[in-house]
Amino acid sequence: MRPGVRFSIDSLPTRARFGAGIAATAIAEEVDRAGLRRVLLVCSGRERPRAERLTRELGDRLVGTFDQVRQHVPLEVAEAGRALAAQLDADGIVSIGGGSATGTAKAIALTLRLPIVAVPTSYAGSEVTPIWGLTTAARKETGYDRGVLPTAVVYDPDLLAELPHEVAVASALNAIAHCVEAFWTPDSNPVTASMASDGLRSLSRGLRGSGDPFDSARRESLLYGSFLAGLSFAAAGSGLHHKICHALGGAFDLPHAELHGVILPHVLEFNLHDAPDAAARVAQALGATDAVSGLDELYDSIGATRTLRALGFDEKELEYAIDVVTAKLPIANPRPVSRSGIATILGAAL
Amino acid sequence: MRPGVRFSIDSLPTRARFGAGIAATAIAEEVDRAGLRRVLLVCSGRERPRAERLTRELGDRLVGTFDQVRQHVPLEVAEAGRALAAQLDADGIVSIGGGSATGTAKAIALTLRLPIVAVPTSYAGSEVTPIWGLTTAARKETGYDRGVLPTAVVYDPDLLAELPHEVAVASALNAIAHCVEAFWTPDSNPVTASMASDGLRSLSRGLRGSGDPFDSARRESLLYGSFLAGLSFAAAGSGLHHKICHALGGAFDLPHAELHGVILPHVLEFNLHDAPDAAARVAQALGATDAVSGLDELYDSIGATRTLRALGFDEKELEYAIDVVTAKLPIANPRPVSRSGIATILGAAL
Repeated sequence: MRPGVRFSIDSLPTRARFGAGIAATAIAEEVDRAGLRRVLLVCSGRERPRAERLTRELGDRLVGTFDQVRQHVPLEVAEAGRALAAQLDADGIVSIGGGSATGTAKAIALTLRLPIVAVPTSYAGSEVTPIWGLTTAARKETGYDRGVLPTAVVYDPDLLAELPHEVAVASALNAIAHCVEAFWTPDSNPVTASMASDGLRSLSRGLRGSGDPFDSARRESLLYGSFLAGLSFAAAGSGLHHKICHALGGAFDLPHAELHGVILPHVLEFNLHDAPDAAARVAQALGATDAVSGLDELYDSIGATRTLRALGFDEKELEYAIDVVTAKLPIANPRPVSRSGIATILGAAL
Repeated sequence: MRPGVRFSIDSLPTRARFGAGIAATAIAEEVDRAGLRRVLLVCSGRERPRAERLTRELGDRLVGTFDQVRQHVPLEVAEAGRALAAQLDADGIVSIGGGSATGTAKAIALTLRLPIVAVPTSYAGSEVTPIWGLTTAARKETGYDRGVLPTAVVYDPDLLAELPHEVAVASALNAIAHCVEAFWTPDSNPVTASMASDGLRSLSRGLRGSGDPFDSARRESLLYGSFLAGLSFAAAGSGLHHKICHALGGAFDLPHAELHGVILPHVLEFNLHDAPDAAARVAQALGATDAVSGLDELYDSIGATRTLRALGFDEKELEYAIDVVTAKLPIANPRPVSRSGIATILGAAL
């Protein structure tokens, strides 16, 4: 802490259970603890068989399943979920899945004010944030509402065993982006920064460990890291990196998690000299001499996608992409950012 | 994190502002933010002039002052405070002072359900816990109620400039005890442990720094450390150390903060081999090769009181003291503890 520092902290009430193999029992316990008697299960169609297995202990407290989860939470999906919840007279939601399942549960909770028990099966971290998102044909809308923050989260690293390796890597890099950005947003504070350091350390340990692609110990590190990443993001909010990814993801339909991985090193490099504390924390957490080479080395060790091109982005659209992001300015950032800064970052990411 | 670890986390919503010189402005802002229009100021008689100065910006939103704060919150004091709050139709409390002022505000809030803006002027940490205490002629009663958790806390290191040095040291050692014990209570978890490590590091930096007894940078370190200590204690709860101090403090009227300082090294030594993670964390945070010598060295560097005798405890009462603590068994502790364990700890602390 620098002498004379001023900050404010506004932490959310978070309840989480963590442990390999706990899911079925912990879901039932948390449903009881929240006093829920008519639960709607929210998951994707693909996830449904496992989700139903994991909620079997709920017995007749489970009144229905909504399995139409889709990426980016299309408004019509949210509305179908809300209609089903209302029709079933549900008094709560259990969501099982990645960020899209959690997001769908939040979209239902947004209007119906239902408590959520969230069971993440990716490293998205959104299960500990009060941020919701909805997509219509034209655009993605996001908002902040403490009412959509899950009442309890069940983290079971075993549930991530079958996540395809590339998806797991992309999801973990997304979590790394949450941690890094938490060092420099306007709402960053020493508690958030410490949590983000721990998260970054845990994620990097999980990604870099040896053995089977993500054995149980590595999944534990990754999942715990993604929890801290989510908490950091919830506290520190969104900064330049997330605003770039959000704008590009919406305009060019690029994959969310991979996009984070591609953009992050370039935003980090852009901010390096104006955010020395952040750079030092990133370097230290990654066990590197400097932040950028630490991230480079981590990316190399896991063979991460490094360029916008590799994500299917067409070079001819670069100017338009710069326009799209520039339209979001002003963005609070340690280094003042204008169109030319955006051009530098996107050009380097190309 | 050890592979296969299971834990649960149940964190409280905490709102805090931190910064030298912010108190008067931040108090007014937090009162506004909480929507309070009829605030009762709670402080000690000695603190009153400064407390009134700091709340001047509230104007007619300040409807009265209760300045009868006394240590351990005697029931009759709490009742007088409640009566005044009810009579004034107060809709909130601003408490300014050490643990006793915060405790009195909590005792009033316990029955009247009023939000509290707490402004600590010691390193007690109770401003971020939902624990209340009340003392009658016979005994001290404590309880857990989320309704007494302050809505907002204003940390201004400048307010601690006039704290007598010995009081400041004792108060900081009390905070150190919160951190150390947070490593091994049953509700301890990796997030709490990390916070407690940071807290311990910050407290030790503040205590050991050079210069004037607690110049502004050291007060910042101590106050930030005491905030983390309070959060750790709120999350991890009370263990063997606190239960010993609580029992002895009540039975022998020993000074709360100093007693913590005296007892802690002996509980730490008792648990050392059964809580290797805790020992490693203490050693690391103190920058020492082992936990006990790290604490010894810290105590020596600040000339801390080291024995029960020095606190006025009469050796002839040792057996009775052992009985008093033994009556609190069973106590969950990494090393199983019986009467003989208590005798070992108190004998060494004598």
